Amino acid sequence: MATELYDLTVPVFTRALKALSGLLDKAVAHAGEAGAEALLAKRLIEDMHPLSKQVQIACDSAKLCVARLSGAEAPVNEDTETTIAELKARIASTLAFIGSVPREAIDGQEDRDVVLKFSGGEMPFKGQAYVTGFAVPNFFFHVSMAYALLRQAGVPLGKRDFLGAPQ
Amino acid sequence: MATELYDLTVPVFTRALKALSGLLDKAVAHAGEAGAEALLAKRLIEDMHPLSKQVQIACDSAKLCVARLSGAEAPVNEDTETTIAELKARIASTLAFIGSVPREAIDGQEDRDVVLKFSGGEMPFKGQAYVTGFAVPNFFFHVSMAYALLRQAGVPLGKRDFLGAPQ
Repeated sequence: MATELYDLTVPVFTRALKALSGLLDKAVAHAGEAGAEALLAKRLIEDMHPLSKQVQIACDSAKLCVARLSGAEAPVNEDTETTIAELKARIASTLAFIGSVPREAIDGQEDRDVVLKFSGGEMPFKGQAYVTGFAVPNFFFHVSMAYALLRQAGVPLGKRDFLGAPQ
Repeated sequence: MATELYDLTVPVFTRALKALSGLLDKAVAHAGEAGAEALLAKRLIEDMHPLSKQVQIACDSAKLCVARLSGAEAPVNEDTETTIAELKARIASTLAFIGSVPREAIDGQEDRDVVLKFSGGEMPFKGQAYVTGFAVPNFFFHVSMAYALLRQAGVPLGKRDFLGAPQ
């Protein structure tokens, strides 16, 4: 039986990115467009990323995971988004990219070498360990930070908004 | 190839629960035992759960996922922990329980019926969809909220503290 790598990534990211877009909608519904926009600079503490960057990193985490596993070329994003509409478009373009990669390009890549490069060096993984030990936890971390920032700002959100709807 | 259900759950929860225990250690190292204890009542906003409860729910999310998939009886926890030492013991007992369930009890349970009961009704899942669409995201949500609360309180934490070490 077991679970194919595609099912551990694309539908999981798709569901959560749509949920993330929904969190931004709820921010607008709660605070208005200008009010929601003012939240984009909010941080949990001064040396953490602001809300806008949390959304960008969540998008990149999904994009890069799918690109690294499949070998597909990831679209380049300059992280210039400063409005809710731009961040929702960023999420939509991420959804379009990950949705464009076929299952065949991801299934079976469990042993593929994935090497992450950081300023401090490299982290080598095999595909499966990269997904379960890095990409998915890291992705949900940033979606959760976006939720935390909006929730702390008073946007009425619940667990279902975070979990989203089955794809 | 594909990934067995055990590998999507027990090692993932084990790694992150050990990381969560490490976050509490870092809180003590930063603020002292009494200072860290004072953080346990912190909330991101008044109608969210405090840090102590975020740790308890993270533990329960892992425990109940493993119990539901395997049919093993989950230990009962009364959520009475009020100190860092007690919360670390709660994490340790959760690790002991999930570590006691053999791989054979979880692998192959992708189609098992898992029904979650809420005050508002029931949510029926199959095992695999329960893991990827509910249990794992929900688990990381609560670990992330614990991280967010500690980080906002000034505890020096980084992404590696959240991700933990491979198991």
